[in-house]
Amino acid sequence: MAVIDLNSDLGESYGAWTLGDDDAMLRLVTSANVACGFHAGDPSTLRRICALAVGHGVRIGAQVSYPDLAGFGRRHMEIDPDELRDVVLYQLGALDGFAQVAGAGVTYVKPHGALYHASVVDRAQAQAVVEASREYDPSSAIVGLPGSELLRAAEAAGLEAIAEAFADRAYQADGRLVPRREPDSVLTDPAMVAMQAVRLATEQEVVAIDGTVVAVRARSICIHGDTPGAVRLAQAVRAALEVAGVSIHPFTV
Amino acid sequence: MAVIDLNSDLGESYGAWTLGDDDAMLRLVTSANVACGFHAGDPSTLRRICALAVGHGVRIGAQVSYPDLAGFGRRHMEIDPDELRDVVLYQLGALDGFAQVAGAGVTYVKPHGALYHASVVDRAQAQAVVEASREYDPSSAIVGLPGSELLRAAEAAGLEAIAEAFADRAYQADGRLVPRREPDSVLTDPAMVAMQAVRLATEQEVVAIDGTVVAVRARSICIHGDTPGAVRLAQAVRAALEVAGVSIHPFTV
Amino acid sequence: MAVIDLNSDLGESYGAWTLGDDDAMLRLVTSANVACGFHAGDPSTLRRICALAVGHGVRIGAQVSYPDLAGFGRRHMEIDPDELRDVVLYQLGALDGFAQVAGAGVTYVKPHGALYHASVVDRAQAQAVVEASREYDPSSAIVGLPGSELLRAAEAAGLEAIAEAFADRAYQADGRLVPRREPDSVLTDPAMVAMQAVRLATEQEVVAIDGTVVAVRARSICIHGDTPGAVRLAQAVRAALEVAGVSIHPFTV
Amino acid sequence: MAVIDLNSDLGESYGAWTLGDDDAMLRLVTSANVACGFHAGDPSTLRRICALAVGHGVRIGAQVSYPDLAGFGRRHMEIDPDELRDVVLYQLGALDGFAQVAGAGVTYVKPHGALYHASVVDRAQAQAVVEASREYDPSSAIVGLPGSELLRAAEAAGLEAIAEAFADRAYQADGRLVPRREPDSVLTDPAMVAMQAVRLATEQEVVAIDGTVVAVRARSICIHGDTPGAVRLAQAVRAALEVAGVSIHPFTV
Repeated sequence: MAVIDLNSDLGESYGAWTLGDDDAMLRLVTSANVACGFHAGDPSTLRRICALAVGHGVRIGAQVSYPDLAGFGRRHMEIDPDELRDVVLYQLGALDGFAQVAGAGVTYVKPHGALYHASVVDRAQAQAVVEASREYDPSSAIVGLPGSELLRAAEAAGLEAIAEAFADRAYQADGRLVPRREPDSVLTDPAMVAMQAVRLATEQEVVAIDGTVVAVRARSICIHGDTPGAVRLAQAVRAALEVAGVSIHPFTV
Repeated sequence: MAVIDLNSDLGESYGAWTLGDDDAMLRLVTSANVACGFHAGDPSTLRRICALAVGHGVRIGAQVSYPDLAGFGRRHMEIDPDELRDVVLYQLGALDGFAQVAGAGVTYVKPHGALYHASVVDRAQAQAVVEASREYDPSSAIVGLPGSELLRAAEAAGLEAIAEAFADRAYQADGRLVPRREPDSVLTDPAMVAMQAVRLATEQEVVAIDGTVVAVRARSICIHGDTPGAVRLAQAVRAALEVAGVSIHPFTV
Repeated sequence: MAVIDLNSDLGESYGAWTLGDDDAMLRLVTSANVACGFHAGDPSTLRRICALAVGHGVRIGAQVSYPDLAGFGRRHMEIDPDELRDVVLYQLGALDGFAQVAGAGVTYVKPHGALYHASVVDRAQAQAVVEASREYDPSSAIVGLPGSELLRAAEAAGLEAIAEAFADRAYQADGRLVPRREPDSVLTDPAMVAMQAVRLATEQEVVAIDGTVVAVRARSICIHGDTPGAVRLAQAVRAALEVAGVSIHPFTV
Repeated sequence: MAVIDLNSDLGESYGAWTLGDDDAMLRLVTSANVACGFHAGDPSTLRRICALAVGHGVRIGAQVSYPDLAGFGRRHMEIDPDELRDVVLYQLGALDGFAQVAGAGVTYVKPHGALYHASVVDRAQAQAVVEASREYDPSSAIVGLPGSELLRAAEAAGLEAIAEAFADRAYQADGRLVPRREPDSVLTDPAMVAMQAVRLATEQEVVAIDGTVVAVRARSICIHGDTPGAVRLAQAVRAALEVAGVSIHPFTV
């Protein structure tokens, strides 16, 4: 029987500003990538999301970022790997305080935005993320793109490496995502998104934009929470997976 | 035999800016109030100070602050107690990550600057600091002014309340400090500072600015680390205490 | 013939976060209180709002704030008046750059949030705001509450003092606003709000919550832009004023 | 008769932290690159430095930076050129407020740290800096490295392009600086630094690290203000230039 985890970026509100519908998403996913204050997420938001996540049995992951609130962590930074490791460790500890107070704890780390993209190809930055995670908790898991430097570094460090796929992104024949700039890179039709999720979960494959069938081994599917219609997409994915008999479970214990 | 702890504010550098001589102070004190990033202390500074503190057998405390880097945490903020509790918890977790990686852990909390002063008289803010500390670690100690709302709240919450005194500040006849604005509020003569420290440690009293002898029961003496001549003062205090046969020990295990 | 200005807080988005419907509000008001980056308003938002305001013939005012992004400038700060003056001047210059590039310039200053409230009663903080405004541009106007220390300081400094009233807030018999905590402090019925605006503009009076008719002399009416239904309220106010034959004009040239 | 300008990075203190000896440097240089708050420079520091600069007849330039206080603007950011233009314009306006209140105004722009390095080779970022400068004040000058994209963009935009040289940095035979990582990249002997400054000012050339004589046409010489011994180096440079009969004048009117 197929098993899959659903993860989403949450806790991305800040002060007077709200982003996404965290309450709705927490009813649909099994793993919450919670912002840690460096690209989003003020302390009170962290507390609220951690408490809600625990209430819904959702696992808490640290969505660590470059220090860039004005840029929402989406601007690449050439940051020294030792500094980056410390920046990640700082965020990890900060979030874990709220996770522990809520009765759980941070169980995995997933880089956000530009750091996520950097960790695919930049070995030094990938290792910095992994090193902070390992130092803080050797039983931590790392979530990233299949074939990324991040997952390679995680395995080398003895951490659990969790490959993720995307239900709402078009794939290329070589297994990589169609870049966001290109047309049709993002799927918005709930039926299409749900179908891709089911195929990923049950067949470990995806139909690329040119029709090729590509193998994509992923233990988690990322569902974006901050796009218009995000909740409706997530509901469609969850419903379709349940109909297909897929067990929706966190990848962590 | 008299026992006293020496504490100092450390880790207050930030990025390109250096404040104080942390390396020298860590050889002289037994408890380091480490800045947590909200008034000072970038992540790499936190790592460095925690590692050094552990190397010297110095206890690590969280010097939590209002979120005010430009004001160095010295400007009072009317912050909602629930928000303040979360702001404190965030800092506590962030610092504790570095403390744990260094092989120790945060063992106490001491508010910084304007939050320190607020916690003397403002019950709601004092309770917010204590509540975050208790939530995070019920075995945490709280350091503050004798008679403060902070220590009262700590006791009420079942946390260890550590009263501190000042070796380099003049006292009034009622046991309160002479306000900084007033002349002679700060002692700068190493011999005088050392004498006050010894009397505090051995007799639990201090000679007030008007000559009155005032009882001051303190388990820790705060030594400022960022003033000119700070290291020389700390050396004088430590040497005088040792000559007087006072045992200099952390108040925490 | 009655003349009134309509002002609203705009430009309060930040990075990935959006607040309010600035485009709609700029079609309805005559004066835009543009955030300056300290409680909201990233640089690109400032550019966009200034350009739009000029396009609509809307005057640009600096909505200056305490430095508190996480608290959206709503938390009172005990900031030294000299520092506050400089904090205000910094924001004023920053916004004015965008206003000038858009072909206009900042013509007035209105404090935001907790600084607005402080400037009603705190003479030193009020004077700091006025002093920065005067230094930067002696022809600047100051917008505030009737009877406030802020408007008193403006007049004393030779700046134009613009009293404002609120169309969507309930008044007390003594002319002050009903505090937000109390029930019925905020009016949400468009018809009621529009009626209050018309009475303010044509009769210079308002019906207080206890039925008393109170004189309120105001040259501008503030319309909140970030509440649900804000645009609809603003449309109702504008339409009612036009029907009543009130001329809606900026108070500045 | 040879004429040269001396520029230095100033105003880089922040809140409780002090960097460099601005008062001493302002007696020695003719152009002050004043930090604008994004990598350093709180509002009160900006006021102080602008007032001092005007008092000494020193020109005020905007030392604009990436938004990165923790990294002191030394970490490269992949920031969208339109956003960067707005980030630069924001800083320019903010500083100019203080410069104007001091009785002068910002007369030139020089990027700081990682943005300085980016503007040597990255055309889009260089153009963003120039575009903001031109929008704000078409009579503004731009200071940068000879042959940089920055100076090319300045010329293309019709702004005055001011090439600068370094008295305390070793040059390569091709006219570029020896990278900081390499040994002997920074000159620390006052006599050597002074000699290089005089040769730059009088002969428009420098002796490269391999002994080659290289032409370096520069209208300004940069003197670092935040290194140990900075003031002594600046004094040596100034004295040697005066002895050599070089006229030390700002490049701007």
